[in-house]
Amino acid sequence: MLLLTQTDQTIQQRLAEELADVEGRFAAELHSDLTCVNQLVAHVERYRGKMLRPMLVLVSGFATADNDERLCEAHRVVATVVEMVHMATLVHDDILDEAQVRRRGVTINHLKGNESAVMLGDYLISHAYHLCSSLDRPAINRVIAEATNTVCEGELLQLTNRENWQLDEQTYFEILRRKTASLCGTCCKLAGMLNESSLAQCEALFEYGEKLGIAFQIVDDLLDLIGREDTVGKTLGRDIRMGKLTLPLIHQLTIVGERHRQQLLDMLMTHVASVGANGKDVAGAMAIAKLLIDNGSVDYAQDWAGRLVEQAKGALDVLDNSPARDLLCDLANAVLARRH
Amino acid sequence: MLLLTQTDQTIQQRLAEELADVEGRFAAELHSDLTCVNQLVAHVERYRGKMLRPMLVLVSGFATADNDERLCEAHRVVATVVEMVHMATLVHDDILDEAQVRRRGVTINHLKGNESAVMLGDYLISHAYHLCSSLDRPAINRVIAEATNTVCEGELLQLTNRENWQLDEQTYFEILRRKTASLCGTCCKLAGMLNESSLAQCEALFEYGEKLGIAFQIVDDLLDLIGREDTVGKTLGRDIRMGKLTLPLIHQLTIVGERHRQQLLDMLMTHVASVGANGKDVAGAMAIAKLLIDNGSVDYAQDWAGRLVEQAKGALDVLDNSPARDLLCDLANAVLARRH
Repeated sequence: MLLLTQTDQTIQQRLAEELADVEGRFAAELHSDLTCVNQLVAHVERYRGKMLRPMLVLVSGFATADNDERLCEAHRVVATVVEMVHMATLVHDDILDEAQVRRRGVTINHLKGNESAVMLGDYLISHAYHLCSSLDRPAINRVIAEATNTVCEGELLQLTNRENWQLDEQTYFEILRRKTASLCGTCCKLAGMLNESSLAQCEALFEYGEKLGIAFQIVDDLLDLIGREDTVGKTLGRDIRMGKLTLPLIHQLTIVGERHRQQLLDMLMTHVASVGANGKDVAGAMAIAKLLIDNGSVDYAQDWAGRLVEQAKGALDVLDNSPARDLLCDLANAVLARRH
Repeated sequence: MLLLTQTDQTIQQRLAEELADVEGRFAAELHSDLTCVNQLVAHVERYRGKMLRPMLVLVSGFATADNDERLCEAHRVVATVVEMVHMATLVHDDILDEAQVRRRGVTINHLKGNESAVMLGDYLISHAYHLCSSLDRPAINRVIAEATNTVCEGELLQLTNRENWQLDEQTYFEILRRKTASLCGTCCKLAGMLNESSLAQCEALFEYGEKLGIAFQIVDDLLDLIGREDTVGKTLGRDIRMGKLTLPLIHQLTIVGERHRQQLLDMLMTHVASVGANGKDVAGAMAIAKLLIDNGSVDYAQDWAGRLVEQAKGALDVLDNSPARDLLCDLANAVLARRH
């Protein structure tokens, strides 16, 4: 869970109750008459982590409701839908990343093969749309489908840039905006739309979610480089091995001169080759991490995330002051502070 | 294309025009501002084959329209949506089957890796729902999502039964009903729903599409066993290699006695091992095909498909007589006659 410390306990308690309700809806929607399907779904439910996206829907819903911060039924449905969409992308991402561990559990692709992971992801996506279409509001379906279109584009853009060791910062941010931030922004905007908030408020909520989403992914990428596997709970160091450059490395490759640039690339290649041959290369990974820490590239990425979180909170100025707005700020701060 | 010979040219011409319109909508919906995405989409458009599912929507639409067999805009949208859903399942199926060739072209997974195929399939699914939600009719979204839920269940049921050499006929038909027939039935039913046809007519159209879909898949499975690769245009013999039993083999394993059953299983295992070691085993594949032909198991499957096609056509009795209804019958016959 994200660590929320700044806001009052009443609203946090209400959020916890709503999240439990989302979990129930999630399980109910995915239930099948086929045992083989239920077994796979049971496994994927163990992936459940921070529930960031449902939280964004629910808390944005609290913050824009005019009657005592009460949610409507559609908020709960949308919160469940976005968690399902996100879970589908996790399952398919793990195939892309050849990941073996996710949230301390074995991944579906590792346990049951890529084939099951492909189909289970499809099952989750299909049910997300199925649940969403139970709302009698085609505009909501449309906005969610727009977000998933963008997420897929981001993933494809990232794939195209695998082993592109010249990836620039602009393209990196474009990948993050599409693959992670668009869905987070949509979560917040939809909550406002369902409360018939003004266009300005919906746009501000989108901006909040988008900035928070980019910051979240920067921190996620940082944890892959410098986190501890036992704390983070998933296979680390995958980005370099999969040829994915992330912000600290892009920064480091930019600031070092031409000669050191080639040295750093050689270091990366040696690491990738060594992992390929021996399954792991702890010393190489630590040397890369140390270099990025010592030369300020980790700080550079953390500063970026920090600025984005400030911008995200700033976007909320158009909302009335409320415990729910405070909780949104708290959520943004928690994204920066997370260690897993 | 499926060979349509029995119906008048006027309606066939109109169908051809509508299908061309669907192709245009398909391309327009999938267009992205990212070059890397458009390149993948251009490749997948070469997969386009029989366009059976859009045909089912369009011709069912003709057959249930009361004003001169005219379609409404929503029929064209739904026809495009179901083609997109189907294309997504093809792209993901090819990962499951480790297929290298599809419709005479190299598959996405073989050309660009499984990762791109996973994401391209997701991109297609997402756009299918996106396009569908442009219709201001949540009930249509819901019916399509129900069908895709069922398709995924069928795929998962099939996966669970990989290398189950005791697969029975009932489970085989259940797999076909879910993974192939449910979407075909839905195509026909939706066309009726959009024309506000009676419940009886919508149910009859569903039955027609479902029966036709099962027959289509039986024939597809037969072609994988006894077709010619240069005619069919895709890698054949995959089912046995992937541990998928289909109707002729299920029949053969049932009718031979215990002793011959073990011989046949040994023959299959030897074939699978030989393909694994040498990349192919033409002699083994031909021996299996010959056995199934000589012992009547191919005829048995063909008879099944024939009966289902007759039942499909019979279900259409509730519709008024029209050239469009004749065309639906013609389509059903063409499913039986196809050689690729």
